[in-house]
Amino acid sequence: MHPRLTLAISIMEAFAIFAYALSGLIEARKRRLDAVGAFLVALATAFGGGTVRDVLLSRRPFYWVEHQEYVLAIFAMSIFAPLFLRLTTRLFDQRALLVTDAIGLGLFSVSGTSIALDAQMPIFTATMMGVTTGVFGGIIRDVLCNEVPLILRDSRPYAVCAFAGCWMYIGLEQFAVEPIYNVLMSTAFILVARLITFKFDIRLPR
Amino acid sequence: MHPRLTLAISIMEAFAIFAYALSGLIEARKRRLDAVGAFLVALATAFGGGTVRDVLLSRRPFYWVEHQEYVLAIFAMSIFAPLFLRLTTRLFDQRALLVTDAIGLGLFSVSGTSIALDAQMPIFTATMMGVTTGVFGGIIRDVLCNEVPLILRDSRPYAVCAFAGCWMYIGLEQFAVEPIYNVLMSTAFILVARLITFKFDIRLPR
Amino acid sequence: MHPRLTLAISIMEAFAIFAYALSGLIEARKRRLDAVGAFLVALATAFGGGTVRDVLLSRRPFYWVEHQEYVLAIFAMSIFAPLFLRLTTRLFDQRALLVTDAIGLGLFSVSGTSIALDAQMPIFTATMMGVTTGVFGGIIRDVLCNEVPLILRDSRPYAVCAFAGCWMYIGLEQFAVEPIYNVLMSTAFILVARLITFKFDIRLPR
Repeated sequence: MHPRLTLAISIMEAFAIFAYALSGLIEARKRRLDAVGAFLVALATAFGGGTVRDVLLSRRPFYWVEHQEYVLAIFAMSIFAPLFLRLTTRLFDQRALLVTDAIGLGLFSVSGTSIALDAQMPIFTATMMGVTTGVFGGIIRDVLCNEVPLILRDSRPYAVCAFAGCWMYIGLEQFAVEPIYNVLMSTAFILVARLITFKFDIRLPR
Repeated sequence: MHPRLTLAISIMEAFAIFAYALSGLIEARKRRLDAVGAFLVALATAFGGGTVRDVLLSRRPFYWVEHQEYVLAIFAMSIFAPLFLRLTTRLFDQRALLVTDAIGLGLFSVSGTSIALDAQMPIFTATMMGVTTGVFGGIIRDVLCNEVPLILRDSRPYAVCAFAGCWMYIGLEQFAVEPIYNVLMSTAFILVARLITFKFDIRLPR
Repeated sequence: MHPRLTLAISIMEAFAIFAYALSGLIEARKRRLDAVGAFLVALATAFGGGTVRDVLLSRRPFYWVEHQEYVLAIFAMSIFAPLFLRLTTRLFDQRALLVTDAIGLGLFSVSGTSIALDAQMPIFTATMMGVTTGVFGGIIRDVLCNEVPLILRDSRPYAVCAFAGCWMYIGLEQFAVEPIYNVLMSTAFILVARLITFKFDIRLPR
């Protein structure tokens, strides 16, 4: 469609993969894993959600097979992880990381929903696949690092924001909103929802 | 076949899914997960075994894609989990839960075997797929909750009962027993085997 | 090709499966699992890597479906695990186990790479699939036993040796080396690399 919008999505995608891989590296650092461990955890965090979705949908090739450049980038990030993490924490503060991660959550969930709809999934299932795409990388990261997944423990809304955004995407589609605008708007919605609930410390009941 | 028998199987299926989802909710409660966590764990417990089997067999659509009503029911159970658990523990005592879970183990294992045979698996592999269907949901539940899976720890026969029942199903098939009777008889066998070994505290050697 | 070479590969394969299953049994023993638990963990260790690779490649039938004899052998090993482990530790010392495991790592990684190339994967992805085949069984084993996977914790090169060997396989293929010689040479390379790095206690930086 509009080349500037496709560019916008590509940039967000790069940010999202970067943010997820980074959260893998941080977790790996905490656990004192070596470079190989850091690479595996970062890779699983960045591409785990999409891979699980594609296995469930019987869909090939995987994103990371088509975009080897991202795998290579994570490879480089992992080798220079100590340097890289020091650099990142100087450039990005806690808040910047929260925003980047929320962009990833939004973009992955919304695009996952869209892919599931293309694969003829019923709409409720499509939203579940969307949330799966957004959150499963983090679940695998935490299982590998032998922790109860953060998403199951943390009562601050995360999957819930993604879930709402996936429904928004489906709703806007009914009004024939062009896909690329729809992705941008629904992703923005998830980002804002995540930041607002975080800011006001809104929590789910246990 | 006989409409009353198909009804019987549908009722058992509902019981089985309910029992597995419930064990997920109980585990989630113990870990103090929020509603989202409870939902994910309950869902994984109820449908994890069948999903792993279907991925191994390259079989689609998944049961939970075709029967969205069960996913929605678990969704509702999770939101009202505190209320729901209080109600359940008043209605069902420990023994009732054991019976319901054993019905689930039996039905899932036997139907898993039958599905694997339909997919041209050799018979030993088919029994393994059957046991996988019966026990993998619980394994995923425990991995998510960061515990050594109960089935690996508990020396009371569980997978063994399922395994025996799957072989019984295969044996009865040789005698041209009609599938629906065969499912009912083999499920009943697993249920009884589980209850007897439990009652007399029979344990596997370590 | 040359019947003696195919025999050599079959023997190495048997050794490799045996070594991986054994490491599952040892882990199961440490965790005091019963016979069923030991069987499941041994099975997952031996065939987990290849199964994950085949799911990623959409490839069927699985190795363990076509070679039920290995599943039955692991079944027998698990039932007689206490006896079997005592026997093994008398016959094999720590060093013998290290060698057997390294043969498994080599053979699984190299053959995984070759299978991924046959499935039209790009070369970097093919090496990643190769390493996955070699190391994922151990990852599943440790996740089931509720530990941070050894491969993520241990700074002695393991995946790195496999990775180098996979690249060697791809390199030799460019020179039109016959596949069976190529597999043998690359596997030998991984074995030697693993033993040398172990001997000189070479470690990856954290």
